[in-house]
Amino acid sequence: MILPALNDIISAHERIKPFIHRTPVLTSQQMNRIFGCEMFFKCENFQKAGAFKFRGATNAVRLLTKEERKKGVVTHSSGNHAGALSLAASMNGVKAYIVMPENAPAVKVNAVKGYGAEITFCKPTLQSREETARIIIEKTGAVLVHPYDNYNVICGQGTSTVELLEDINDLEIIIAPVGGGGLLSGAATAARAINGKIKIMGAEPLNANDAWRSFASGVLTPSVNPLTIADGLLTSLSELTFSIIRKNVDDIYTVKEESIIECMLLVWERMKIIIEPSSATVLAVIRENPGFFRERRVGLIISGGNVDFRKLPF
Amino acid sequence: MILPALNDIISAHERIKPFIHRTPVLTSQQMNRIFGCEMFFKCENFQKAGAFKFRGATNAVRLLTKEERKKGVVTHSSGNHAGALSLAASMNGVKAYIVMPENAPAVKVNAVKGYGAEITFCKPTLQSREETARIIIEKTGAVLVHPYDNYNVICGQGTSTVELLEDINDLEIIIAPVGGGGLLSGAATAARAINGKIKIMGAEPLNANDAWRSFASGVLTPSVNPLTIADGLLTSLSELTFSIIRKNVDDIYTVKEESIIECMLLVWERMKIIIEPSSATVLAVIRENPGFFRERRVGLIISGGNVDFRKLPF
Repeated sequence: MILPALNDIISAHERIKPFIHRTPVLTSQQMNRIFGCEMFFKCENFQKAGAFKFRGATNAVRLLTKEERKKGVVTHSSGNHAGALSLAASMNGVKAYIVMPENAPAVKVNAVKGYGAEITFCKPTLQSREETARIIIEKTGAVLVHPYDNYNVICGQGTSTVELLEDINDLEIIIAPVGGGGLLSGAATAARAINGKIKIMGAEPLNANDAWRSFASGVLTPSVNPLTIADGLLTSLSELTFSIIRKNVDDIYTVKEESIIECMLLVWERMKIIIEPSSATVLAVIRENPGFFRERRVGLIISGGNVDFRKLPF
Repeated sequence: MILPALNDIISAHERIKPFIHRTPVLTSQQMNRIFGCEMFFKCENFQKAGAFKFRGATNAVRLLTKEERKKGVVTHSSGNHAGALSLAASMNGVKAYIVMPENAPAVKVNAVKGYGAEITFCKPTLQSREETARIIIEKTGAVLVHPYDNYNVICGQGTSTVELLEDINDLEIIIAPVGGGGLLSGAATAARAINGKIKIMGAEPLNANDAWRSFASGVLTPSVNPLTIADGLLTSLSELTFSIIRKNVDDIYTVKEESIIECMLLVWERMKIIIEPSSATVLAVIRENPGFFRERRVGLIISGGNVDFRKLPF
């Protein structure tokens, strides 16, 4: 299996720069005092379509051949990748077909519609999603852009870590959330190659701990019907992301639901920015392991800010 | 009555610069499309203590005489001014006495306590607040720092507009919320003197429209028991702020409660930043009067981001 290298990520960065936001790295003295370390928040919640996913999606769309561009892209997702791919496609004059479960929240359906994608509803099972996507591919020839099991997508996701390390010197640790592993794979590949001394850690909900179990056992072990408020982290690693993570990640920490909620609320209250539950996992790692992070310089990849404000946990 | 001049605001700015955050001016193409104009958000929600109030409070504290510093400052407030004055005092080694109504939300009481101020609880009436503050002043000699009926506080509040106009050229309109009128007075004084062509507008909840009524009639007409979700705008103009506003403000717009809520939610969802209901009034003015603002370059003073997340209107 060929794993992405730093060069691929640097190329992806040059490729997507005209389309993405260079997101800010925020700091907060108050939060540093509370958590006992020096934190640098790479704010992908300010990325277009509200999440880092726009980076990978844009890289994948820009790498389509002329023929493929005519046929369009397809994915199955009820989350941030659906919106990101729809927007990336629309900005590049490419048609997007999105398969969404019939019970997807109206707010997400509307976002995808707003970006001009064509939605096909399916039953809320992985089997129905994949089957529906397959039918669309047969009919249209559209190219599947998987949310994370995709080389070009992973390279795109790594670009946020390149920017973080351009902006902040001497980081000792980087923490990124892990669901399907696209973001963590990209972050780890970039950070490991740029500075071998940086420790790279994954943050995962205890309630969806497939990456932690796979990492610990060395055997890919997908989650079965996980339930967590971090709705972006319900997916399980693929062979590709697992291989990258085994090679480049130092450790994976699991965090409790109450830590995730508490940390999300803390960021909203103290930093006045909206982060989604999946992003709060990185802070929850520090919250649950204060001794390890004491006085360290830690980069936190804040994955996104897409929250359904009508379903808050507090 | 002597009204503040631009010079006073410039001096205040130099005086408080080492203590305040220079807050960012944010833009959003998506919001510009939705609202049909070009908007520049001066984000005082990122100010220390979460609101512009820290500017005025710091200016007042820095202007205390040596004798006054020893005796401390006092105010009565259940809102942002209480936290701001407490923090400004604590950063300058000055004691702060805060009179708060016994029904003040725990989150605000805790914030003030966290800044090390001494809290005295009173009955939730203006009479009880003023009486309690008077007793503290008699006992301690502390200096009253009124939330808005105070020359030095108004000059401090004007500094956010100075920064906005330093950062953004060719603004055609500036909109600021109006409650007691400290922020609007400072903004209008600064903007009018810096660029006579800029239109300066106040945004006020229809349900607490004393400034609108006073401005229209030319007679100071306080609100009686107003009820609005914009909890920072329940106060009424003073003689001082009314005089400044009559002289320097072009118009005051009132906005409906549902517009305030809708605009607050839009900013949270699209810009991923937390603004409080009082701040959403400035956007609600554009929402309710789209024709007037079409394609104009508008500066919006976002007053703060202190929200009780357990009492959301959606």
